[in-house]
Amino acid sequence: MVGQWFIKMLNKHPMFKVTAVTSSSKAGLRYDKSTKWLLGSDVPTNLKGIILSDSNPKSIDADIVFSSLPSHVAGEIESEFAREGFLVISKASYYRMKPDIPLVIPEVNFDHMTLVNAQKRRRGWDGAIVTDPNCTTSILALSLKPLHDLLGLNKIVVTTMQSVSGAGYPGVPSYDIVDNIIPYIPGEEDKLRSELKKIFGKVKGEFIEESRVNVIASCTRVPVLDGHLESVYIESEAEAGLKDVIDALRSFKGLPQELKLPSAPEQPIVVREEIDRPQPRLDRMTGTVPGMSVVVGRVRKVGSKSFSFFVLGHNLIRGAAGSAVLLAELLVKEGYVR
Amino acid sequence: MVGQWFIKMLNKHPMFKVTAVTSSSKAGLRYDKSTKWLLGSDVPTNLKGIILSDSNPKSIDADIVFSSLPSHVAGEIESEFAREGFLVISKASYYRMKPDIPLVIPEVNFDHMTLVNAQKRRRGWDGAIVTDPNCTTSILALSLKPLHDLLGLNKIVVTTMQSVSGAGYPGVPSYDIVDNIIPYIPGEEDKLRSELKKIFGKVKGEFIEESRVNVIASCTRVPVLDGHLESVYIESEAEAGLKDVIDALRSFKGLPQELKLPSAPEQPIVVREEIDRPQPRLDRMTGTVPGMSVVVGRVRKVGSKSFSFFVLGHNLIRGAAGSAVLLAELLVKEGYVR
Amino acid sequence: MVGQWFIKMLNKHPMFKVTAVTSSSKAGLRYDKSTKWLLGSDVPTNLKGIILSDSNPKSIDADIVFSSLPSHVAGEIESEFAREGFLVISKASYYRMKPDIPLVIPEVNFDHMTLVNAQKRRRGWDGAIVTDPNCTTSILALSLKPLHDLLGLNKIVVTTMQSVSGAGYPGVPSYDIVDNIIPYIPGEEDKLRSELKKIFGKVKGEFIEESRVNVIASCTRVPVLDGHLESVYIESEAEAGLKDVIDALRSFKGLPQELKLPSAPEQPIVVREEIDRPQPRLDRMTGTVPGMSVVVGRVRKVGSKSFSFFVLGHNLIRGAAGSAVLLAELLVKEGYVR
Amino acid sequence: MVGQWFIKMLNKHPMFKVTAVTSSSKAGLRYDKSTKWLLGSDVPTNLKGIILSDSNPKSIDADIVFSSLPSHVAGEIESEFAREGFLVISKASYYRMKPDIPLVIPEVNFDHMTLVNAQKRRRGWDGAIVTDPNCTTSILALSLKPLHDLLGLNKIVVTTMQSVSGAGYPGVPSYDIVDNIIPYIPGEEDKLRSELKKIFGKVKGEFIEESRVNVIASCTRVPVLDGHLESVYIESEAEAGLKDVIDALRSFKGLPQELKLPSAPEQPIVVREEIDRPQPRLDRMTGTVPGMSVVVGRVRKVGSKSFSFFVLGHNLIRGAAGSAVLLAELLVKEGYVR
Repeated sequence: MVGQWFIKMLNKHPMFKVTAVTSSSKAGLRYDKSTKWLLGSDVPTNLKGIILSDSNPKSIDADIVFSSLPSHVAGEIESEFAREGFLVISKASYYRMKPDIPLVIPEVNFDHMTLVNAQKRRRGWDGAIVTDPNCTTSILALSLKPLHDLLGLNKIVVTTMQSVSGAGYPGVPSYDIVDNIIPYIPGEEDKLRSELKKIFGKVKGEFIEESRVNVIASCTRVPVLDGHLESVYIESEAEAGLKDVIDALRSFKGLPQELKLPSAPEQPIVVREEIDRPQPRLDRMTGTVPGMSVVVGRVRKVGSKSFSFFVLGHNLIRGAAGSAVLLAELLVKEGYVR
Repeated sequence: MVGQWFIKMLNKHPMFKVTAVTSSSKAGLRYDKSTKWLLGSDVPTNLKGIILSDSNPKSIDADIVFSSLPSHVAGEIESEFAREGFLVISKASYYRMKPDIPLVIPEVNFDHMTLVNAQKRRRGWDGAIVTDPNCTTSILALSLKPLHDLLGLNKIVVTTMQSVSGAGYPGVPSYDIVDNIIPYIPGEEDKLRSELKKIFGKVKGEFIEESRVNVIASCTRVPVLDGHLESVYIESEAEAGLKDVIDALRSFKGLPQELKLPSAPEQPIVVREEIDRPQPRLDRMTGTVPGMSVVVGRVRKVGSKSFSFFVLGHNLIRGAAGSAVLLAELLVKEGYVR
Repeated sequence: MVGQWFIKMLNKHPMFKVTAVTSSSKAGLRYDKSTKWLLGSDVPTNLKGIILSDSNPKSIDADIVFSSLPSHVAGEIESEFAREGFLVISKASYYRMKPDIPLVIPEVNFDHMTLVNAQKRRRGWDGAIVTDPNCTTSILALSLKPLHDLLGLNKIVVTTMQSVSGAGYPGVPSYDIVDNIIPYIPGEEDKLRSELKKIFGKVKGEFIEESRVNVIASCTRVPVLDGHLESVYIESEAEAGLKDVIDALRSFKGLPQELKLPSAPEQPIVVREEIDRPQPRLDRMTGTVPGMSVVVGRVRKVGSKSFSFFVLGHNLIRGAAGSAVLLAELLVKEGYVR
Repeated sequence: MVGQWFIKMLNKHPMFKVTAVTSSSKAGLRYDKSTKWLLGSDVPTNLKGIILSDSNPKSIDADIVFSSLPSHVAGEIESEFAREGFLVISKASYYRMKPDIPLVIPEVNFDHMTLVNAQKRRRGWDGAIVTDPNCTTSILALSLKPLHDLLGLNKIVVTTMQSVSGAGYPGVPSYDIVDNIIPYIPGEEDKLRSELKKIFGKVKGEFIEESRVNVIASCTRVPVLDGHLESVYIESEAEAGLKDVIDALRSFKGLPQELKLPSAPEQPIVVREEIDRPQPRLDRMTGTVPGMSVVVGRVRKVGSKSFSFFVLGHNLIRGAAGSAVLLAELLVKEGYVR
């Protein structure tokens, strides 16, 4: 499903042109004939007729490779592409926690890109691998960034309510989820914890010193198609008033906003004031670039140094394909692509 | 919907006989002809033909009155019944937080019943009002009781995922909840906080001294028919190992279990070991009396004095009608009904 | 909900400008403050601040009035507007079956507009009322039009699977429809039958002679947000091959297509070839004007003079607001509005 | 899922004892450790510890074999068991349409069992294979039986709305069915047509002469967990009044009812009078043996010789495991098992 959103977002993109779509098992077939298209009525016209290639770096002509491979094959294939000089932007979890691989959210920690020099040198690669966090992490980390800057976060207690598209396709059997919730997603709580600590970490020479924030996560699967909702409680170092916190969220901008990148929403964080928002179905397509803003609501001060709120993001756009495309745009602007 | 579960649980009850079902707006009509029965195919045979009475204490012959009135009318009607000598067991929120009204979960704080003496004296009532907590509170408080006894709770951070039946009928419009979650339930977070503090409070003479536990609640509505799932994080006074905590939950019994009351499940708290439980649809009817056990799962030690877990309970049975019927059984056994 | 789609479709419309939105119960309030907006994140910017007016023709300055009033008040209010010279395009069922009121689908029976002369004369109105069919009828009738032209329909057996938005808001309680289907919609089967017979009827002087087609309808409500799916079986006068039938559906165009009206989709009927389409979620927004095409699939020849197929349409767009706006465009072009 | 219902219905059965549960891929494992139990909280106590055997007739000690094998392996394995003398009752589709294999619904066409003699003789088997129809067929055929007897059916137009459990597990991906309907189920319409014609056929010597009834079927998948709802239109040879038709449905009894078999519901067909029934969630567990009655509602006379109605049945009980167990009981009583 992430792959299909890549197709959708890169179709008619102002900076990028899709030169190849690879799938080793379907190489040689037409994209629209070999794919069960899941995102509404039809495959985007421009890419419908493209012939799938083998995932072989020798036969691909491109500057950037977007990977949404399953983790167990990503390790090998992505490194082959990096070795051959491609800049690989990966949604796979395989390399995310390796010390020399940047794990980057464009608005949050683009300074981690400095890891790439050490990565190339040590691994002897002409290209490089940059990773995109897990969808749940991306959404949460973006909403926490201005709070971390303002208050210094000590503890985060989060319960997620994640949509079925987060499990891919076919993913969650309908018999498991109609009239039900599953209070467990394999590996998700660990990813949320370790990725957050890396993203909020600081560059120390050639490595990232992890943040010491304490993360307690409980992840659930809910009968929602798209959009992850997260119920967040934080404890902070410093005190602040509710208004200051809301202002910090609302006025937050990152490098992509300053550079006015094509996939950058004007506001990465939209704060809603209605008492019953954000809601997945109503708010998942929020943003001047639809689905690229996260939506925060019900911000409450619940202690002298503690706050609660809900954050929602589209797991396949801000949490995956959109975030990776935005990162690619930023990498081009900042000179990482020759 | 609570009223229908009362009908279902009191039909053929070994200790009680339904002598009247009241509804001022439908007095004189047959129950099955004037009610849209929502709980499966048919109204229980025994009570199907009962003629609805006016909610007038003078015309009712009974010892115990179960009330599931809307809060705005409960205040007056329940006090009329109490004045006339009835023991009123109320699911309405109107009297719950009044200082002389016990707010009781049979297994948790039956000792709060001592408030009744002061209540009768001051209000000059022959009867009395005893209240049952909000469904979300009942389920959570029951699961916390053994932990509070073992560890002493300082802080509770809870995110609830509540079923649509908790909103009554017609309740939540389908257009609001299909493929969606609503991150707000009017009044619910306040009830959860204040009721928990009262339930875990201590009797001091004629009043309850509230517990000082800090409760941070975030309540959501999810597309599930029955069963409230709660994601719980606690911080405690004392330390304990994970095994001790699980043992405390699993071995917990209250007065209803000792007395082997008809509606008392053998285990009020069932702990499941599967990594992906409890689930609302699979587990809401748990218990030797179906729906009367809460189900705890995924108990995790997340800090030296902090734990996380999920708890699930059937909001209309353990969270409402079943809990009230169990309380009535206990009140009879303990001599509160002449 | 139909009213909200009117707002959405008329916001920035190339031919129309909204001069007033009326609601007698909310007159004087700002639209966005007094309406629970149900169609995604926000009220369209242009109309958000409009102040609601009383439904009084004297105080309204407009040429066309779109009405989505409940049937029981539509009779009186719509006639007041017609008397005062407005052209009323009504989604209400009140006038649909009156002999002098046209019941029109723009692509199907615009010739029925001749009734308007008799209507004005007899009723002494300066304006007129034109009605739009029930959503289920609109979708079905559009798909049947080319088949009726080609084959002559004798019998139609239809089972509908209608979305919850068809019941308005709050509409269907979630407790009734999650994990369920309701095999009955009040009044719907009668409307489908009688409206189809009128729409396929022929103008005879000042009245419509109803079609003699035999319609057997079974209407159900399903847990789908938007989009009515209909399973159709027809028996015809003439014989034809499957290919001819599909060609007739696919090549069908009406007056709105010839005139290239702004709300006219290029193809009013889109025929899909996949074995498992149309599906409500994937196909309800089909059309060059999204939601204005109906989608037909699984056309099968099941007897020498009988065919089966499925048709899907967006009940609030092609079945309601969109169809009414398209009709208004057509009325303007054809000179019915001074 | 059918297999799990077999376990549930045969646990503590008054006539049968489960001696073996076979699964070639899991042979040697404990049932409860190797199965994801889908039917509520826990595996039935009696069978939870049973060790799975290989599907090898030599190592099994039993009189009756219930098979819910996938069709592509059923052909071989079932014939091996039949050859070795077992009476195989099969839910698989492989043998259903073979001319010498009875396709039997206990209340409808038990006389087709005479095929078994020819089957044994020709195939040289000691045992035999008897098949149970597809779930959709079972439910429909049972409801049609009294109508066929009363009126003589010429034509049946049916649209089904089938639950996700009918697709097995994992079955339908949740991303395909939430807020959606899929208007196609592979093979289902053909099965419905051909199986109905066989079931309503007549024994002619050693074969069945198929019924000449014309069946037009359109099958859909809906977001319902259990229970298939079918919208039925029939045309008949003879005329009858609505009351006679309803009486025929309501008073219908078959051999299992006369013999008071343990899995026979008192009324195989329950007719409900409410205007909005049957509904899957409310009515799927209907019957004195829950789930074994089909529920008919909204019976309408729509022409001199045509009627419409809805029928609902639990696809896994009356449509599968329950029907097979009832057939086994009948076969024992009628002497087919030594």
